[in-house]
Amino acid sequence: MRTAKAPTLSLTSDAATRRLQIVDQTLLPFALEIRELVTWQDCAEAILSMRVRGAPLIGVTAAYGMALAASANATDDHLDTAYNALLATRPTAVNLAWALAIMCKLANSIPHAERAELLWAEAVRIESADAATNYAIGQHGLALIKALHEKLARPINILTHCNAGRMACITWGTATAPIYLAAQSGLPVHVYVEETRPRNQGLITQWELQDAGITHTYLVDNAGGHLMQQGKVDVVLVGADRITLAGDAANKIGTYLKALAAYDNHIPFYVLAPVSTIDTTLVDVSAIEIEERNGDEVRLVHGTDEAGRTTSVRMLPAEVSVTNPGFDVTPARLITGIITELGVAAPQHLGAMLNNAAKR
Amino acid sequence: MRTAKAPTLSLTSDAATRRLQIVDQTLLPFALEIRELVTWQDCAEAILSMRVRGAPLIGVTAAYGMALAASANATDDHLDTAYNALLATRPTAVNLAWALAIMCKLANSIPHAERAELLWAEAVRIESADAATNYAIGQHGLALIKALHEKLARPINILTHCNAGRMACITWGTATAPIYLAAQSGLPVHVYVEETRPRNQGLITQWELQDAGITHTYLVDNAGGHLMQQGKVDVVLVGADRITLAGDAANKIGTYLKALAAYDNHIPFYVLAPVSTIDTTLVDVSAIEIEERNGDEVRLVHGTDEAGRTTSVRMLPAEVSVTNPGFDVTPARLITGIITELGVAAPQHLGAMLNNAAKR
Repeated sequence: MRTAKAPTLSLTSDAATRRLQIVDQTLLPFALEIRELVTWQDCAEAILSMRVRGAPLIGVTAAYGMALAASANATDDHLDTAYNALLATRPTAVNLAWALAIMCKLANSIPHAERAELLWAEAVRIESADAATNYAIGQHGLALIKALHEKLARPINILTHCNAGRMACITWGTATAPIYLAAQSGLPVHVYVEETRPRNQGLITQWELQDAGITHTYLVDNAGGHLMQQGKVDVVLVGADRITLAGDAANKIGTYLKALAAYDNHIPFYVLAPVSTIDTTLVDVSAIEIEERNGDEVRLVHGTDEAGRTTSVRMLPAEVSVTNPGFDVTPARLITGIITELGVAAPQHLGAMLNNAAKR
Repeated sequence: MRTAKAPTLSLTSDAATRRLQIVDQTLLPFALEIRELVTWQDCAEAILSMRVRGAPLIGVTAAYGMALAASANATDDHLDTAYNALLATRPTAVNLAWALAIMCKLANSIPHAERAELLWAEAVRIESADAATNYAIGQHGLALIKALHEKLARPINILTHCNAGRMACITWGTATAPIYLAAQSGLPVHVYVEETRPRNQGLITQWELQDAGITHTYLVDNAGGHLMQQGKVDVVLVGADRITLAGDAANKIGTYLKALAAYDNHIPFYVLAPVSTIDTTLVDVSAIEIEERNGDEVRLVHGTDEAGRTTSVRMLPAEVSVTNPGFDVTPARLITGIITELGVAAPQHLGAMLNNAAKR
């Protein structure tokens, strides 16, 4: 196993210079380019063009956008302009509106002269809170990997689907958090990275793991079941987009198939996500609407040409009928545990865990 | 639903002109080009370069190669030369050696003067036998689709993985045979075609179905389980590379995952293959060796560029570790029935069906 190195972060902020540095994710995994964001307009452009992606990261970038707006001109008018422009970049992103609302509320409660300083501090707080949540998820997951390692006394083979990783968050990611913490603590792990057609987010996961010096093997989604049959997978770790109170989890298309294979081969299957992913209004799994995405995600494939330039090839003519559901739902009965910042809960105990946490 | 039209055949022969016409499968699905084979050398080149592929089709092409050799020069020396060259094209293809052995045995039992005529007739017989086998498989499968249609009184949704289709055979294919027969008999069917990464043989299936005017929808492999959860699939039809006497079936990687999803959603799952696919020496499924294929099949993806030229893009650098198993094994317990030219058998009754057939 290669030794772990300090991994590239999706976003870093420098209080002294009031600048952000981001990974331009429109170029990943085929090129790594760091961009500097200096104005709120830079932040808006980065969100709009998807140079930053993933709900937590979008929220943090927008919060810094408000802080940068206040640094330039702390009047109500200017902050309103920045707020409206930032909000309009990704209108359906819940985290974006949530982070912007926090920043506006704070700005309205303090004198103009303090806004630049205190909005920056608040953006740092939102950034740190995301990192802390994922660190806690990672610690709970790490305990499970440690237990497996004590039992098996060899490197632990982890299979993951899609990218619930560092690049969608500030640090750690969700499903990847225990992997990074295991590597940091010297626990030997090997990750099976699934391609995750049609958008091939496995390429981002592969890039992240390589960047962090963690041993891994890439495979097409079809091969995951066979690996489990062969005893090559010790645990499956995936993220989630939405979890019901009954413990059913909506995640990237194809997750359900891996949960079936894990169940069939008696392999533990964990879903890792912050508590904010649990939709306490949702009990009935059939109420989760599955987004039908553009068929061109299937018809075209992105990669690099012989000269290393990013390009794409067409696999199917535009007129071929394609179905492209973005997510599927893994029923609670196939899930060993759901790992949040609060701890590990069997799906049927999710509600009780939330209740206990609320009482504290 | 579009009306069915006469589909393009992988190979046609003309006794009057002693010529073959083949689809150049190295260009599929991105271009359709028909090539003429006039000499045994043409046949050898077509097999070697994989312009013809699929065990049955390779065997038939080689048989015609011997017939064409006899037409040019029916001496033992010349036939030996052709035999050796044809055999060397794909040394591991069982059907190739089998077909060539039949042709040699016949040639050795008849006068030189009759060889051209009788070897051609024998090649026609081998060709027809393949078509007849698949037609019988198709008829047994068709009965199941008919029964589903009588029960559901709407178009029947069939999901298929990989390409167990017309292009690997002479006509009909195996898993596709009931689909073509259903379309011919006016039964309304709709086919969900899985991409089948890494080699994307779903593109060939899609091309075949479009060529035959059969309604279909293309999807990535990850989406198949979700479609089953949504009640959008009535039956799964797949081929097989090898079947044990216990009814376990080795087929293209990813088949096992679809069998799990079909089982979980109470959807019938059928494996369609000629009796020759059943390996009566194999009882223990773990004895099936799974081929680990070149990782570049995963790292590179083929398609067309904007000008319509066939090209490829690189998704992963050459140094990224990839695992690329070619097949997986679907356990008998997940298979509703195995459909051969002899009929439909539950996996546990496969041995009995073979015994009964042998007694007749």
